[in-house]
Amino acid sequence: MSNWVYIENIAAFEGQEVTIKGWLYNRTDKGKLQFLLVRDGTGIIQCVASQKDLPPDVFAAAQSVTQESSLIVTGQVRADKRAPGGYELLLTGLQIVQLTQDYPITPKEHGIEFLMKHRHLWIRSARQHAILRIRAEVVKAIRDWLNSHGFVNVDTPILTPSSCEDTTTLFETDYFGEPAYLTQSGQLYNEATIGAFGRVYCFGPTFRAEKSKTRRHLTEFWMVEPEMAYVDLEGCMEIEEQFVSYIVQTVLANRAKELQTLERDTSKLEKVVPPFPRITYDEAVKLLQEKGFDFKWGDDFGAPHETAIGEHFDRPVFVHHYPTAIKAFYMEEDPTRPEVCLSVDLLASEGYGEIIGGGQRTASYELLERRIKEHNLPRQAYEWYLDLRRYGSVPHSGFGLGVERTVAWICGISHIRETIAFPRMLERIYP
Amino acid sequence: MSNWVYIENIAAFEGQEVTIKGWLYNRTDKGKLQFLLVRDGTGIIQCVASQKDLPPDVFAAAQSVTQESSLIVTGQVRADKRAPGGYELLLTGLQIVQLTQDYPITPKEHGIEFLMKHRHLWIRSARQHAILRIRAEVVKAIRDWLNSHGFVNVDTPILTPSSCEDTTTLFETDYFGEPAYLTQSGQLYNEATIGAFGRVYCFGPTFRAEKSKTRRHLTEFWMVEPEMAYVDLEGCMEIEEQFVSYIVQTVLANRAKELQTLERDTSKLEKVVPPFPRITYDEAVKLLQEKGFDFKWGDDFGAPHETAIGEHFDRPVFVHHYPTAIKAFYMEEDPTRPEVCLSVDLLASEGYGEIIGGGQRTASYELLERRIKEHNLPRQAYEWYLDLRRYGSVPHSGFGLGVERTVAWICGISHIRETIAFPRMLERIYP
Repeated sequence: MSNWVYIENIAAFEGQEVTIKGWLYNRTDKGKLQFLLVRDGTGIIQCVASQKDLPPDVFAAAQSVTQESSLIVTGQVRADKRAPGGYELLLTGLQIVQLTQDYPITPKEHGIEFLMKHRHLWIRSARQHAILRIRAEVVKAIRDWLNSHGFVNVDTPILTPSSCEDTTTLFETDYFGEPAYLTQSGQLYNEATIGAFGRVYCFGPTFRAEKSKTRRHLTEFWMVEPEMAYVDLEGCMEIEEQFVSYIVQTVLANRAKELQTLERDTSKLEKVVPPFPRITYDEAVKLLQEKGFDFKWGDDFGAPHETAIGEHFDRPVFVHHYPTAIKAFYMEEDPTRPEVCLSVDLLASEGYGEIIGGGQRTASYELLERRIKEHNLPRQAYEWYLDLRRYGSVPHSGFGLGVERTVAWICGISHIRETIAFPRMLERIYP
Repeated sequence: MSNWVYIENIAAFEGQEVTIKGWLYNRTDKGKLQFLLVRDGTGIIQCVASQKDLPPDVFAAAQSVTQESSLIVTGQVRADKRAPGGYELLLTGLQIVQLTQDYPITPKEHGIEFLMKHRHLWIRSARQHAILRIRAEVVKAIRDWLNSHGFVNVDTPILTPSSCEDTTTLFETDYFGEPAYLTQSGQLYNEATIGAFGRVYCFGPTFRAEKSKTRRHLTEFWMVEPEMAYVDLEGCMEIEEQFVSYIVQTVLANRAKELQTLERDTSKLEKVVPPFPRITYDEAVKLLQEKGFDFKWGDDFGAPHETAIGEHFDRPVFVHHYPTAIKAFYMEEDPTRPEVCLSVDLLASEGYGEIIGGGQRTASYELLERRIKEHNLPRQAYEWYLDLRRYGSVPHSGFGLGVERTVAWICGISHIRETIAFPRMLERIYP
């Protein structure tokens, strides 16, 4: 058998005979010519089976092969501008590994319930393949940027004895007789690991047992959380804009084909370069009121507000200095105006809403202790966290970027259920 | 203030005045000279405070600063062969950010219970820092190798409706009224995503609710699981040996300083290059019997057996063709001898035991269906998994590498509780 190659590398084999192992994506029957679209996970190539050039049994196989049959094809690589991808394979051999009968996802329209139930197969289709390939590129860009900017990856635990935020949205499990909870954030642990490494990040699944059914929520989603010692709010924003623009520009450079499959308007993404505009919460409130929203100072933004603010700018926008009362207990207060805190959210462009939450954490033992009381948090569970302010406390900042929302924004898709291979939602835990 | 630099980059600033932001690791009082060991997460540098060169208040600060105080120092970088790291800082300024009182971890010996309870602080010490820095290097090497060898990272779910292996060791949670379980492996999902991408990997936390207290078990641990379409058992072993040797050689090249801190005998690791020896389970049984073990064909290996087999070779060893009865239901049978299967485990050198389990999965719908029945698995929960054999089934293989065991082996440490920042064990879920 000739050399097994991947379709994404096919250009290097022009004029040579190669073997491709994959699945039939589609077939067009032109009588004595069969055009097979074969995919192998790295791309799709058109394979031409010609009756006059092939042994009868091989041509018969080409005539009979069905959608999503697994097959091994051999042929000569030929440049052809008309072919999708610019190359085609002139078949010399074809072996059907398994002839698929009645593949459930046909070229006709299917309802979302049907597709989600067949998610293990749906991911083979061109659009889903493109989205998940972009997701992998986003994940790689995230790690590459952090690793090359002095951040050390330190994994934080999933099973935790106490909660970081709202306790009503926790998944609980029995940990050998004690209750334990699935993490909503690795941040508190990051604040410990910066004491050892200066700059760190955790990157893993996080969980919210929210009963809401919205386009922006999953019960299980991936979040990267960088945290930096000796960095203040302004420094945090500078890091965030470098980080986010790197992710977007890397996808543009490396996944042009996939963005094209998704018919994404990439001119919007090309604008995502630093500096990003910065507005205060106060200014954001004024902006919303000018746009006709009935919005009061002190309220938190909902999806329509985030969308309206985001659409006002041509790139992601920082909103900082939120009211202390609507942010988490660990946020640093503004020393000159304690009713607002040194928090910052990043709202994506084109109305895609919040993709980052973060800011400067309180460094003071006394303030943190008071906040834990005010929030009625169990003091004992936070004793180790208080230690971080007892022993060598430093000014520090950090943020969390949601992978699925970022992928949805970059791909230009409206529902985040397509941004992860096997989404977990209120009524969806299968397959 | 002068330029803020990281200690790991200090050589580039010889002769210049720089600022370092970190914590006091240790101080030696020589009267008119104070030697401060300052760490910033990237390294440790000796800072010299000289009474005759400094304003009295700055020298007084240098005299009074305590272990693990946070501080900002400024000084001139000077090459000095006697200094740890080869450079020292001749101080011109020192600002104490927080003066730490009574840091609990002192240079004296502490018991393991005490250290584990103070894990959030213990990670600052040189040994723990080195281990976790090597862990981050291992994680990066894993991803770099896979990303550059055509593997697509596809995240698999943590919350699952059914189990991959033994159901008695599952953590359960209430998923909006239905039971759900924390994953023990992403493999079954990988077998779906290879249908879309050819070569994939998942990499995330996995969970075992095991009541055992051994040096090799955590209840929460990280596993990378590559899976490859159109790859058989032999091809799987070839990928594994390239992969594992890349990880080990990358740590040797990039983390020499940390291995030195751990006093690791690196000559043992230098031998970890392909090809790795391959023996069958039959041969392993004979080897154990020759070594005096009372071991019967058909039994599974325990830790002492793995250690004995591993110590027999100077590099990791593959053991393949295990009895079908002691391996998971999805393993491909040897067509010529169905009582053994196309499974393969990789045992680390120096007696560190299994670091990889894997092999070729069954491609046949009929065999898989029979196995699901034989193992009394709930057929309905596996309906989607059976679909993968209905629609374009292909020969395929994959494996799972445990991060913590791999780090323990590379670091040469006896207990895996030190290989993760916040270990989760039978009696340990705090901090």
